[in-house]
Amino acid sequence: MDKKDLTITGNNLALLTDLYELTMAASYFHHKMFAPATFSLFIRDYPPNRGYFVSAGLDDVLDFLESFSYSKEDIDFLQGRELFKQDFLDFLSHLCFTGEVRAIEEGRLFFKDEPVLEITAPIIEAQLVETYVINAINLQVSIATKASRCVHASEGRRLVDFSLRRTQGTDAGLKVARSSYLAGFAGTSNVMAGMKYGIPIFGTMAHSYITSFNEEIDAFRSYAETFPKNTVLLIDTYDTVSGAQKAAAVGREMLARGERLTGVRLDSGDMAALSKEVRAVLRGAGLGDVMIFASGGFDEYKIARAIEKAAEIDAFGVGTKMGVAADAPYTDMAYKLVKYNGQPVLKLSSGKKTLVDEKQVFRSRNEGKLTGDTIALRTERLGGEPMLRRVMGSGKRLEPPETLPGIRERFQKEFAMLDGRYKRLDNPAHLPIALSAGLRELQEQVIHQVKEKELGES
Amino acid sequence: MDKKDLTITGNNLALLTDLYELTMAASYFHHKMFAPATFSLFIRDYPPNRGYFVSAGLDDVLDFLESFSYSKEDIDFLQGRELFKQDFLDFLSHLCFTGEVRAIEEGRLFFKDEPVLEITAPIIEAQLVETYVINAINLQVSIATKASRCVHASEGRRLVDFSLRRTQGTDAGLKVARSSYLAGFAGTSNVMAGMKYGIPIFGTMAHSYITSFNEEIDAFRSYAETFPKNTVLLIDTYDTVSGAQKAAAVGREMLARGERLTGVRLDSGDMAALSKEVRAVLRGAGLGDVMIFASGGFDEYKIARAIEKAAEIDAFGVGTKMGVAADAPYTDMAYKLVKYNGQPVLKLSSGKKTLVDEKQVFRSRNEGKLTGDTIALRTERLGGEPMLRRVMGSGKRLEPPETLPGIRERFQKEFAMLDGRYKRLDNPAHLPIALSAGLRELQEQVIHQVKEKELGES
Repeated sequence: MDKKDLTITGNNLALLTDLYELTMAASYFHHKMFAPATFSLFIRDYPPNRGYFVSAGLDDVLDFLESFSYSKEDIDFLQGRELFKQDFLDFLSHLCFTGEVRAIEEGRLFFKDEPVLEITAPIIEAQLVETYVINAINLQVSIATKASRCVHASEGRRLVDFSLRRTQGTDAGLKVARSSYLAGFAGTSNVMAGMKYGIPIFGTMAHSYITSFNEEIDAFRSYAETFPKNTVLLIDTYDTVSGAQKAAAVGREMLARGERLTGVRLDSGDMAALSKEVRAVLRGAGLGDVMIFASGGFDEYKIARAIEKAAEIDAFGVGTKMGVAADAPYTDMAYKLVKYNGQPVLKLSSGKKTLVDEKQVFRSRNEGKLTGDTIALRTERLGGEPMLRRVMGSGKRLEPPETLPGIRERFQKEFAMLDGRYKRLDNPAHLPIALSAGLRELQEQVIHQVKEKELGES
Repeated sequence: MDKKDLTITGNNLALLTDLYELTMAASYFHHKMFAPATFSLFIRDYPPNRGYFVSAGLDDVLDFLESFSYSKEDIDFLQGRELFKQDFLDFLSHLCFTGEVRAIEEGRLFFKDEPVLEITAPIIEAQLVETYVINAINLQVSIATKASRCVHASEGRRLVDFSLRRTQGTDAGLKVARSSYLAGFAGTSNVMAGMKYGIPIFGTMAHSYITSFNEEIDAFRSYAETFPKNTVLLIDTYDTVSGAQKAAAVGREMLARGERLTGVRLDSGDMAALSKEVRAVLRGAGLGDVMIFASGGFDEYKIARAIEKAAEIDAFGVGTKMGVAADAPYTDMAYKLVKYNGQPVLKLSSGKKTLVDEKQVFRSRNEGKLTGDTIALRTERLGGEPMLRRVMGSGKRLEPPETLPGIRERFQKEFAMLDGRYKRLDNPAHLPIALSAGLRELQEQVIHQVKEKELGES
């Protein structure tokens, strides 16, 4: 199936942009500024309780850049604003993206200040794509990072994305399913994400199913009749333990027919304590292998607490708090000009200073563990693994899109190399990130020049 | 322009759903359950620092319901899952939404436990639309409510939505622009939202524009040349006060040409203090009417602090924290079965008990101020304004879509009727919400019946 058929993110998104990208572009055009520019995409600082980020969203950015163009309707709309001259609008109507992209692959870790992506293109092109690039990567990094924390907390138990109803919109619903699967979730409840990305989909039943029957046990029997191979019964509608007893009765009826009750789901109350009572009920009925699934407000913190209390929970439905990255719903991600027309540039704004020039990140390891990164100039050759790879040239992908299982596996490998102290849910340690001598020297030099020129300092 | 041309939310979203909606539907179908069901959409509790909600998102829900259908590709995908029988898939392939929607209009306030929307339809239809309905309304209510708090804090200063780059995805970017405009923002930076919804769009320049020129003042001059009628200069790239001096120089040059500098923008540092210094620089240059615009981390709390410090800020760009409703990025919104086949139903789950039956909300006023609401049975006739209106019957809208300016005006009127103590940014008071005698009685009766039936209590 062609992914484009289903995408709600792929086509005609050129105007999903801040107006200032277009006004700046008009002014560059007016002043015949067509020289190449490099922009770096990076995160200025860690949100609370974060010590790493998971790269995610690059595939959407490459799709966007490959199809970047303005439709006739777009141009007509801009014309109607009475802001832009006709020669600029004509220019836009023929514009496509012709630049280069270097990036840290999806599924790799990255850290504060490190460019996860650099775009080099004629300044108008590189400028016009800013808003979408940040929008796509910021969200997917936030979610993949949050989801990786849930996976870490779950100590191997199965996690399923249940967030779709409360993600921030439809596009987020899809991207959350993808980003959480990338970070190690087993699948999602989101059917369209299953179709679009090939992610395994899971589903049980809601309270409405139970309450639409005259009695709870009728609902259980009816569901088992419809799905004899795949029945997970929601048991908390009236009372969890009484629900477990009825589920056990239905589980025994299924056994007698040669079928098997797959699981039960808890969705409210003290789930650690309830899970033990439910396990006892199931064991007492000879149904010790029935899976106990829990949902309702789980995130990495609540999962960790449940496991600490030795909850008898085999799998978690992880919803809203992961799906909106509730404790860190955005990153301080910026897309900043670092070089124009061969000259390294920066801004000095209070608290928001940037690192000049095109860069490379070198990652060091020792005995299979990450020991630190060095942010360097692109032209430097240091020890360690160079992390930014050239993935687009002349506006075209250099390789076909990656498979999601491949990215997922890459993440698992990389995450295993990150020491536990950097993964702590509260106050994690921060991996040492150094600046290379070359970058430090150039940075000082440019700051000095700018201060002399703009502030009269010498 | 046909809105459908541009929407990324309108079409073929039937599979943007949790799998369990489909498995439940299959089981209802299998058991020939086609009786009418009513589901209530409501919010269980206030997030921190919230004492009201703004209704938003209904228009998207009605669009979705009117176009609800499964495409051939959807059915093919479901068939491939080996979960569903052919007779059910055939049924789905011809399904559309034929039900009734009653709702509190967009732009009105609503409060915890109140149904903002009720859907009555054959149970399969009412069940299958759950996920999208919550997704659309939860986000837009969260954002409209957050935005209304910014508007309240700004005490009449102009606010512009700058959040697109860090909204959670593309769909959220559009919905945030609409929801914040609905709640009183002056406009958005989001060009596509301008096109799709007719919202005024605003734009200035980024730091990249400044740093792409050899000197800051060259950048200022060049921009003024391109946009002589509409120049807002970003002055914090190197140093805000020095930037203000250069902007003033360019402002005087513009004056000499018979043009006028529209404004300057601050984006970092202590903006309350800096705004006063910048105002002094501008006044000193005879440019006292140049607008001072500020952006950078503003939300209702930071706006209020700036105003308390007598900041000389005329307008705020409000970005990420509003665009993701950072301090309350979701609501505890639920869509619960309250009646099936003529029988009122509820669930008793710990902490998540629901109110039975179809409902109406009656709103009381005194001397132009809201005094409280009563949640009642649909059939009851109480004093006050009935808030839920029938907006869809037999799957069709009963009236054409409303205009956004009309909804925005409705919100302004309603918000003016809410006393200041309910709008406090911290720990607001909660408007009294009562349950009618009829609802309380039926609720007790159904709880008693359920406990007797399910738990053997009498």
